[in-house]
Amino acid sequence: MTKKITRRKFIKTTTVAGSAAAVMPYSLFSNRVKTRVRLGFIGTGLRGQWMLWLAAKYPEVSIPAICDIDDVMIASALKILKDGGKPEPRVYKKNDEDYENMIKNENLDGVYVATPWKWHHPMSVAAMKAGINVGTEVPAALTVDECWDLVKTSERSGKFCMIMENVCYRRDVMAILNMVREGMFGELLHCQGGYQHDLRHVKFNDGVNPYGGGVEFGEKGFSEAKWRTQHSIERNGDLYPTHGLGPVSSMLDINRGNRMTHLSSFSTQARGLNKYIVDNGGSDHPNASINFKCGDIVTTTIKCANGQTIMLSHDTNNPRPYSLNFRVQGTKGLWQKDARSIYVEGVSKNEHRWDDESSYLKQYDHPLWKRFENKAEGSGHGGMDFFILRAFIEALKGTKPVLDVYDAASMSVISPLSEKSIRLGSTAVKVPDFTRGKWKSNQPIFGLDDYA
Amino acid sequence: MTKKITRRKFIKTTTVAGSAAAVMPYSLFSNRVKTRVRLGFIGTGLRGQWMLWLAAKYPEVSIPAICDIDDVMIASALKILKDGGKPEPRVYKKNDEDYENMIKNENLDGVYVATPWKWHHPMSVAAMKAGINVGTEVPAALTVDECWDLVKTSERSGKFCMIMENVCYRRDVMAILNMVREGMFGELLHCQGGYQHDLRHVKFNDGVNPYGGGVEFGEKGFSEAKWRTQHSIERNGDLYPTHGLGPVSSMLDINRGNRMTHLSSFSTQARGLNKYIVDNGGSDHPNASINFKCGDIVTTTIKCANGQTIMLSHDTNNPRPYSLNFRVQGTKGLWQKDARSIYVEGVSKNEHRWDDESSYLKQYDHPLWKRFENKAEGSGHGGMDFFILRAFIEALKGTKPVLDVYDAASMSVISPLSEKSIRLGSTAVKVPDFTRGKWKSNQPIFGLDDYA
Repeated sequence: MTKKITRRKFIKTTTVAGSAAAVMPYSLFSNRVKTRVRLGFIGTGLRGQWMLWLAAKYPEVSIPAICDIDDVMIASALKILKDGGKPEPRVYKKNDEDYENMIKNENLDGVYVATPWKWHHPMSVAAMKAGINVGTEVPAALTVDECWDLVKTSERSGKFCMIMENVCYRRDVMAILNMVREGMFGELLHCQGGYQHDLRHVKFNDGVNPYGGGVEFGEKGFSEAKWRTQHSIERNGDLYPTHGLGPVSSMLDINRGNRMTHLSSFSTQARGLNKYIVDNGGSDHPNASINFKCGDIVTTTIKCANGQTIMLSHDTNNPRPYSLNFRVQGTKGLWQKDARSIYVEGVSKNEHRWDDESSYLKQYDHPLWKRFENKAEGSGHGGMDFFILRAFIEALKGTKPVLDVYDAASMSVISPLSEKSIRLGSTAVKVPDFTRGKWKSNQPIFGLDDYA
Repeated sequence: MTKKITRRKFIKTTTVAGSAAAVMPYSLFSNRVKTRVRLGFIGTGLRGQWMLWLAAKYPEVSIPAICDIDDVMIASALKILKDGGKPEPRVYKKNDEDYENMIKNENLDGVYVATPWKWHHPMSVAAMKAGINVGTEVPAALTVDECWDLVKTSERSGKFCMIMENVCYRRDVMAILNMVREGMFGELLHCQGGYQHDLRHVKFNDGVNPYGGGVEFGEKGFSEAKWRTQHSIERNGDLYPTHGLGPVSSMLDINRGNRMTHLSSFSTQARGLNKYIVDNGGSDHPNASINFKCGDIVTTTIKCANGQTIMLSHDTNNPRPYSLNFRVQGTKGLWQKDARSIYVEGVSKNEHRWDDESSYLKQYDHPLWKRFENKAEGSGHGGMDFFILRAFIEALKGTKPVLDVYDAASMSVISPLSEKSIRLGSTAVKVPDFTRGKWKSNQPIFGLDDYA
């Protein structure tokens, strides 16, 4: 599990100009280094606007075009760019398909996609086919075929499709990744992650405000409630696996020395959303008669080729404090996030007793976080958004993306596979090998040093 | 989920002598009340000796016979009884089958079985066939057929087979059961439990001391290492599910209004035991070449007829602090043991923020614990052993046992089913309905009030 050769070390040992390389090491890894990038935005809802605000801080990033179908959201986006000192972009807003015109007409290095889930795949594919690199919000696709389509399109076009899984950059997660790579936990055995987030205020609102205040969704809802809630009516599975799976994927070297082979999912009864409607809108509200298909808590267990297991929890319909349910365990010790605890045999102060995680997280703070902590502050989601956007921009400049289309596919495919497993009575279903065997020789790429 | 009618309430509404009934309510439930019970012990290893010491405190319990094959253990047991003021029992120690003579020759009301796992089933069956009630240590059986055999034998003989699952009586567990019954968590959705206990010092020792000091087991080992370790060589599954499953079974009304329908198990690679041998005995030690079959961490997910899921973790081969991994979650809130946290919507001080569990555990302290806390202190495993033994003795006096043969079967069957699931690639396997449909009308029996 220990990675002896980091990119930084490689640079130090292969170049004379070690210090210069440390500043711009990516120049060694590409012959296509750009100093400026042209970035289009597809989807300027609340998420897109936030990333737009962050992107506008980069002098080397121009944003010549944005695309959305909601005039209110577009107006906000234009104001953000104006306030950020960027020229007014061209706006594509005619209809759902106007992104195709943007892709065709604009000379872009990349597009960032922050639209409702079902649009991530077609937009990403269209962009890559047009020779444009992609950063897509999670999940990157909703079906197994769509995942394959992303992979094949990226391979054929030579364009990358980076999954914008920001939790990979959470400070504690990166410190734990550091500990994993240093061998502190020994050989990894079991990881947990998930999405345990009371989304009732996101799935329902008053049609005006984005969070709560009513029990409307769909046409009568606002922001994510417009489209996200419908997934809980139509699908039963882990609808949102990537926040939990992304971080442990890099720890387990998924697609790079390891891969996920099969999984099984279990779903509880569906109660929370109906209860929320009845409690807040009354049993006579039209939405009170809706039959929600998605079980309130979905538990998915995944087996890896190297033996490890991953347990993911999806839990968004009932009252609970937020938690991504992380646990990382190996032959020497483990991290358990909910208890803010770490135990490492021979290192922990007392045998069989937890240490508080804080001293470890400080000691193993990731070099990337050390380098950018001032910039990351206040940039959203505890700094994660700064890093994921920066990584995307660095990749657009010509370096190899640290989260690629194989990550996009393997993280996203868990949703349709969990749906299938539940539909078939929690039977085990195989996870496709999107690398077609290359996982055996692929080397880890994420979080190797302070580059990205 | 709320149980409106407790035994106490039932008594209060059906008897005039409410206060007398509160002292000895079981007299209402049996026409076979005994004032004295004759209890035989099969297995007087360390566990048996501990329970013997506790049993000797009961003036109404006589212990006319004990059975074991180890002279050292027998000598300790005899000393315990002597020190406890009990007459010297007859000793059955001729061979592995001498328990049959004890059962045949002695006039016993019950036997307590604390032998190696594989003996629990044959000993329990033999006792019931001879008209003797049984309290068996966990697990009660090792195969599906053995579980059925226990059930059928109990039904035919009219004798009970109580599974001595002491964790059902843990103080926090019983307080949470209380909260569940009061509806504090709403309708239950998901429970977790497990056995996360670094047993390397139990599975290996120096052949003289019970815990650690060497890497021997089997013939060269001592105490549990003599037999327990072999299970990790021969079997891959959740070898010890009942400590986690027992407590959540009563919360979920398993066998009494609900039942487990199917499960799937995943197992990690097996590393910990070999690593322990190599680290402590060297790679040249003969045991270093043993191939352990049992994966280090086994994750089992179980689906219930009423919709809920249960996740169990078995994790005994690597360094880690002890934890039974409890989580109990419903539509109104949840308990998470490892974080010592509770959240209940509308009750917790801050929205989306955990409360420390302590004030809840105090407020909802179970009536049984309130009644007996002084007696329970110092009685082993935080008082749990006092309660499980007391419940067994009360049942031997003639009242209905609060953990019965259906609990014994449904808790124990998880091991062979998890082995089967793993053997078949983590496919879903059905859980038998040992009640043959009676779960639909059976009423909860455990922890209803301060009786047992």
